[in-house]
Amino acid sequence: MTVNRSGSTLIEAPRGLAGVVVTDTEIGDVRGREGFYHYRQYSAVDLARTRSFEDVWHLLIHGELPPDAERAAAFAAETAVLRRLPDEVSAVLPAIAAAAQATGSGPLAGMRTALSLLGAVKGFRPVYDIGADERRRDTLAAAAAVPTLLTALYRLGEGRDPVEPREDLPYAANYLYMLTGSEPEPERARAVEQYLISTIDHGFNASTFTARVIASTGADVAACLVGAVGALSGPLHGGAPSRALDTLDAIGTPDRIDPWIRQRVLAGDRIMGFGHAVYGTEDPRSRMLREIARRFGGPRVDFAVEVERRVEAILAELKPGRELHTNVEFYAGVVMELCGLPREMFTPTFAAARVVGWSANILEQSEDRKIIRPVARYVGPGAPMAVPVAA
Amino acid sequence: MTVNRSGSTLIEAPRGLAGVVVTDTEIGDVRGREGFYHYRQYSAVDLARTRSFEDVWHLLIHGELPPDAERAAAFAAETAVLRRLPDEVSAVLPAIAAAAQATGSGPLAGMRTALSLLGAVKGFRPVYDIGADERRRDTLAAAAAVPTLLTALYRLGEGRDPVEPREDLPYAANYLYMLTGSEPEPERARAVEQYLISTIDHGFNASTFTARVIASTGADVAACLVGAVGALSGPLHGGAPSRALDTLDAIGTPDRIDPWIRQRVLAGDRIMGFGHAVYGTEDPRSRMLREIARRFGGPRVDFAVEVERRVEAILAELKPGRELHTNVEFYAGVVMELCGLPREMFTPTFAAARVVGWSANILEQSEDRKIIRPVARYVGPGAPMAVPVAA
Repeated sequence: MTVNRSGSTLIEAPRGLAGVVVTDTEIGDVRGREGFYHYRQYSAVDLARTRSFEDVWHLLIHGELPPDAERAAAFAAETAVLRRLPDEVSAVLPAIAAAAQATGSGPLAGMRTALSLLGAVKGFRPVYDIGADERRRDTLAAAAAVPTLLTALYRLGEGRDPVEPREDLPYAANYLYMLTGSEPEPERARAVEQYLISTIDHGFNASTFTARVIASTGADVAACLVGAVGALSGPLHGGAPSRALDTLDAIGTPDRIDPWIRQRVLAGDRIMGFGHAVYGTEDPRSRMLREIARRFGGPRVDFAVEVERRVEAILAELKPGRELHTNVEFYAGVVMELCGLPREMFTPTFAAARVVGWSANILEQSEDRKIIRPVARYVGPGAPMAVPVAA
Repeated sequence: MTVNRSGSTLIEAPRGLAGVVVTDTEIGDVRGREGFYHYRQYSAVDLARTRSFEDVWHLLIHGELPPDAERAAAFAAETAVLRRLPDEVSAVLPAIAAAAQATGSGPLAGMRTALSLLGAVKGFRPVYDIGADERRRDTLAAAAAVPTLLTALYRLGEGRDPVEPREDLPYAANYLYMLTGSEPEPERARAVEQYLISTIDHGFNASTFTARVIASTGADVAACLVGAVGALSGPLHGGAPSRALDTLDAIGTPDRIDPWIRQRVLAGDRIMGFGHAVYGTEDPRSRMLREIARRFGGPRVDFAVEVERRVEAILAELKPGRELHTNVEFYAGVVMELCGLPREMFTPTFAAARVVGWSANILEQSEDRKIIRPVARYVGPGAPMAVPVAA
């Protein structure tokens, strides 16, 4: 602790606020050493294995799984009608898609713009000026629209017309339907649904933190989500689930695995798709996504499993004692590819799940009513200088 | 300090991260006890008294005041050409304005949407993927467009056509020109310019922090600024400079000052426009803005000065020892009103200045290349629960 010129006590924090507790939460937790993470006490991968996206969305937003089938159906229906975009938003999507197309900024930046507009069209009000029910409704309206926005922007960018959402399909199936224009095979829809559930929340990442900082000022739900989307678009956060596939592509064939990996490891290069800051053990998401990939089977999956096996073996040989497992990107990329998602939609698809986690965090932060405002320490030259007269 | 289940050391922080040093900065500092704040060693109000907005913008972005008249003119010209919007953005503004108009969400939410689009149209790239010069250019392109966006959205909301920017006018004069369609009186343009300079930066507020968190992920400049605009729109942050005028209106006439104030003070109510968390002394911005208001003179200014005098006297009588001065909102509102700015443009006008401060902070954060990611502490029930089968 130090005292600054203003007389206030300053608290030294590690760079990047690493390990600094910024808030209490009841939404979930990542227990890295145990290889376990949960949403409101339920193992997230168990939820992904056994429940629907809508049930888990209900858990995040309402604090509990739907207590009965009626309530589950009502919640699914409530969110399904919100998939349809207001005309005022649909009308602007071609212009947003054209801008993204011209510069290659992609569907995520386009969704950021469209979601900002959606908030204004829906008249979202500051979270501190409204009650919990209205806040919840605003998060549902925003999150339900995200898959519609993303798929419409993607298709417009491809020169095709958007596909209207269908209310009779579950969240993930409707997402694939809007993307391709045809009803997905149940196996693919379920695989994407499981991926989405496992991605809703995962500790206090930078986009979740951004959403909470903005919410702490009392800004409306769209303002919070748009900031979170911006943070997710950063290379250090949203990453690139497609990079792991690039690794598979770069290796090419099974006979090239060993020399390729050995060269990288000996050069000290990072191998995309391996290693995670949080888990000492295997990432529980990787385990589930590998299972899903194996359900599909085929040469691509066999190749991915073989690459994983060889990377672990070569590391054990060349760097004994250093455990390195696949991270969520590795099999997430494989699964999304198997389900027909184009690579440029990998991070946007991540956003279509994480928006539910952001929503829960915005709602929790709104109850706190305390602005999040740390300080910066001035480290420039000390003595004030007289302002020189303009030349 | 505590150790959590994952084995990482957690650092307890005060609520809202109050007093927690999140970063070092060379941009500026607020010295509350001394009633002084500066931008890169220069007293901000001295800068406002003696320099142009463009000169101070150069100071924030390039780290020094323009070294000579040539450089000052070149920077002013460089930013002036960036005022004109790309056609792809202009084309969408009527739709954005209509949405804001229908729901009353206002020019700030509209600017958030349009700025997000502008970033995509201009093809802003992640700050970690580009060099310092390109980052700087992106901030200039975004900030220079903000007054054009705000005034266009305001006029469209009033059912009038936007006014094209003029490159031959200084930043503040052009802002008033685009708002009203006629060249402002020099006294008004200068008053707004001085207000804008004094508002560029002021310590580590929530919007500046938001911009830096997003920048720390490596996201592009538009992503950072759009998040900051969102935070500014929160009632606990951007506040309402028009509230102080509401106080003047509510009091109405000089003879009602005393009873009105006494009633509020005795009821323990806050008086809008008075009190600031940072300054123990008079807010240096208030002092400067009062001077500016007095240059204009007239009954409104006399009334404001009288209200200020009486509030201080009545507080000294009823709550001895408790110093309470006008905050920046009080005379900022008076000055903006004198300059012909409508009340709904007060916070947007604030944004038209603060965008330069955000820009400087984004540039500084981009050099750090460390993600800002604190942690949340899970405080819900402890034991994991088995996921129940869906009903």
